[in-house]
Amino acid sequence: MKKSSFILVISLLAIAVMTYMLLSISTKKQEQVVLNANPVVKAEGIESKNEEWRDAYPRQYDSWKKTAQSDKIEDLVKKYPQLAILWAGYGFSKDYNAPRGHFYALQDNINTLRTGAPTGPDDGPMPTACWTCKSTDVPRVIAEEGENEYFTGKWARLGNQIVNPIGCADCHNTQTGELQLSRPYLTRALESAGWVMKDVSYQDMRSLACAQCHSEYYFKKTPYTDKEGNKQVANVVTFPWEKGFTAEAMEEYYNSYGFSDWTHALSRTPLIKAQHPGYEIFRTGIHFKRGLSCADCHMPYKQEGSVKFSDHNLQSPLNDVANSCLTCHRQSEAEFKAIVEEKLERKNQLNVIAMTNLGKAHLEAKKAWDEGATEAEMAPVLALLRSSQWFWDYSIASHGSFFHAPEETLRLLAVANDKAQQARNLLVGILAQHGVLNYEAPDFSTKEKAQELANVNLPKLVEEKLRFKRELLPQWDEEAVKAGRLNKEWKEGMSDTASYPQ
Amino acid sequence: MKKSSFILVISLLAIAVMTYMLLSISTKKQEQVVLNANPVVKAEGIESKNEEWRDAYPRQYDSWKKTAQSDKIEDLVKKYPQLAILWAGYGFSKDYNAPRGHFYALQDNINTLRTGAPTGPDDGPMPTACWTCKSTDVPRVIAEEGENEYFTGKWARLGNQIVNPIGCADCHNTQTGELQLSRPYLTRALESAGWVMKDVSYQDMRSLACAQCHSEYYFKKTPYTDKEGNKQVANVVTFPWEKGFTAEAMEEYYNSYGFSDWTHALSRTPLIKAQHPGYEIFRTGIHFKRGLSCADCHMPYKQEGSVKFSDHNLQSPLNDVANSCLTCHRQSEAEFKAIVEEKLERKNQLNVIAMTNLGKAHLEAKKAWDEGATEAEMAPVLALLRSSQWFWDYSIASHGSFFHAPEETLRLLAVANDKAQQARNLLVGILAQHGVLNYEAPDFSTKEKAQELANVNLPKLVEEKLRFKRELLPQWDEEAVKAGRLNKEWKEGMSDTASYPQ
Repeated sequence: MKKSSFILVISLLAIAVMTYMLLSISTKKQEQVVLNANPVVKAEGIESKNEEWRDAYPRQYDSWKKTAQSDKIEDLVKKYPQLAILWAGYGFSKDYNAPRGHFYALQDNINTLRTGAPTGPDDGPMPTACWTCKSTDVPRVIAEEGENEYFTGKWARLGNQIVNPIGCADCHNTQTGELQLSRPYLTRALESAGWVMKDVSYQDMRSLACAQCHSEYYFKKTPYTDKEGNKQVANVVTFPWEKGFTAEAMEEYYNSYGFSDWTHALSRTPLIKAQHPGYEIFRTGIHFKRGLSCADCHMPYKQEGSVKFSDHNLQSPLNDVANSCLTCHRQSEAEFKAIVEEKLERKNQLNVIAMTNLGKAHLEAKKAWDEGATEAEMAPVLALLRSSQWFWDYSIASHGSFFHAPEETLRLLAVANDKAQQARNLLVGILAQHGVLNYEAPDFSTKEKAQELANVNLPKLVEEKLRFKRELLPQWDEEAVKAGRLNKEWKEGMSDTASYPQ
Repeated sequence: MKKSSFILVISLLAIAVMTYMLLSISTKKQEQVVLNANPVVKAEGIESKNEEWRDAYPRQYDSWKKTAQSDKIEDLVKKYPQLAILWAGYGFSKDYNAPRGHFYALQDNINTLRTGAPTGPDDGPMPTACWTCKSTDVPRVIAEEGENEYFTGKWARLGNQIVNPIGCADCHNTQTGELQLSRPYLTRALESAGWVMKDVSYQDMRSLACAQCHSEYYFKKTPYTDKEGNKQVANVVTFPWEKGFTAEAMEEYYNSYGFSDWTHALSRTPLIKAQHPGYEIFRTGIHFKRGLSCADCHMPYKQEGSVKFSDHNLQSPLNDVANSCLTCHRQSEAEFKAIVEEKLERKNQLNVIAMTNLGKAHLEAKKAWDEGATEAEMAPVLALLRSSQWFWDYSIASHGSFFHAPEETLRLLAVANDKAQQARNLLVGILAQHGVLNYEAPDFSTKEKAQELANVNLPKLVEEKLRFKRELLPQWDEEAVKAGRLNKEWKEGMSDTASYPQ
């Protein structure tokens, strides 16, 4: 064969192969179009039952269901007894666990000792707002009742309404399947921070869907008149973003009108409880600054045959380094994990230092009050404790801040500790003025000792909770099933665990 | 033309173009080989005069010479008056500037008030070791005299020997041009840390060449017998790496035999002066962990015609973001700089907090001594101050730690401040025991106030230094020129600036 004929044959062969490949890609694209057609789950309204989305979105549903595998209860008050002191007088001193999968969001809210043991719809320590980030039923009830109405009354009032855990309808439109914000307060907060909602990009939405819940909030007392013409006050979940997204800006926001979540039971400090400001802290980190969204790492794309879909098994990317981190970072999994591990160790070191000093400061302040310290003497101490606790809580309350923004987290912990130490410094002087030298705060090195100092009667709280779970909870579920709001089967096989024995 | 002929013509054309390109690359490679042949600068010994390397290495020399453009004096004691307090009783409280280019390494060492104003070879506050990182004459003198001999006597003894600034022979072999370690103490230190020198890679060398000077060190008292049979004690530069490369490991090393650089003039604390542990901190940062060397960012490759060479204008990569950072980071220069700026702000915030508390602690400790505090009372305070100051100094003494390892730097500053605060806390109690309540440390918010508290007589020091520069320094230069160790011209045009008027 001549050289020219040889080249011709090779060229024609190459063209044939490429044509075949092109056709194959085109077939797969057609397949993909059909699969990505965003089928309608229900013609009208919000479908809160996650399992009803399965037929239309089997891959997304099945991967969401895997969040049930994240089922370990880690009792953080046991791990860090300081927490019981830091939150003395507030629900978190009773019970605080590391987060589990979305599948358990509702169960954990019902099980936690913080939500108490109501005996009827108007009983219990918590307002309805405490359901807000736990269930797909929340946007449904808001749509049905109105937002202020939803945010009115006791937590127990909605026990038979809020029955499905965080899932599809929290982020997706039931008719179109598209990403949407189901919580109106996020839209309001973004607008208060100067955003123009029509300019929000799809990539923004891949973080904002998460920011609906993974953000700092407080319950804003909001007076309104209900449909019957009665004056009511709603406890509306509100994001304090008016002055900016940083810890400093939000502290200024809260201070500008003297807001406090509670008064500390030992030091009498009016405190702000930071509530998982995950989105805000993420914004200060390098991944956000380089244009990534929450979903890029927590919902990496997966391939099933010719279908690409985002994994709805929301979890730490460290559980799936190969599909998330390593798509950008060219590194071995072991090397990668070692680097992340170091970030966690640094945070843990500064966190323990800050918690310990802050805990001692609260107890030393109590001693000062006991010895007759005056309001005037204590004012600068309380101002420091308020600020210290805000910075500390802000830096650790969100999931994974040590990774989302390691530098910002270390900075906040350092500032928090400095303020706690400033307070302790003043307290030594105040105690000396009242004749007390060399005071040592009592030991709070175990959960038992710390909860005793914080006046937490754990056995009583557990007993009441178990009574609630035997008596009222089954009624809620029964009513919800009867009303068609709950498919009883979905709970089957779910292990009902908490920080206390069932 | 038939289709088959057309394909044939195109194919042949492509082959012709590729052949031409291949030949062109090959020509340029030959050119490169000639240019990269590492010519010999001098047949024997070490050539300390940088300008003698110019003929053989014109691009490297010319870019090194550009370090002269980094000529700004920034008086850091003026910027942070806390420094005068923190280093009270030690040379750095007199004079401490931000670093300038390598070109000025020697001039700045001669000009700083820390090296004093000797009147002859056996006079002055400093040992010969203080020349060690300032000049290419150091490896030459070590080769000629012996290492222990070099490290013996006063700084002024070698004034007419050490006359060329940091340059070629510090990192390169005069005969082969190859990278080499010219300081034997680095080799010893690496071996003490378990390194096997024959396994050191070229990429390692691209950091180790810098680590010869940009590392933590102390002067180890080393007895020896000189050539005349006299007992001598050398002050040998030694890297404390035996227990590891972290701040904690080195602290343990120093504590293991009660080492201190000096005793603080106010608090009487036996302190360790951290000395630019740049290499060690770099090792804890992400760029090192991803396999980068110092030279990758500080000496980016440049192209001149067909010649690729590494830029010897050693400076902050922020001055040349396009050639250094952006070769890996796909980002706009402005975005990139904004992110780095934030890292610096975080470090500055924690640095000021730590310096201020540490400064107050030293002054409060002085007050406690003045009020009759006992050694036993003060022991825990001094232990905390020693450790605090070590962590603080370690975190900021090296150039650019805020960038090389932002998380480690913030962690160290946080720990440093916590220890300073612990000390202050104890001091309030001790002062109260001695009847002093509400003590406020004196104001050290300006360089003048702080240096007065630190007993620094600046006008006297400047006057003496200027006398030294008028009288002894010209003699040194003259002798060096006469002996052929210094080409007088190289200093011409150099602006002779310092933190005080000339």
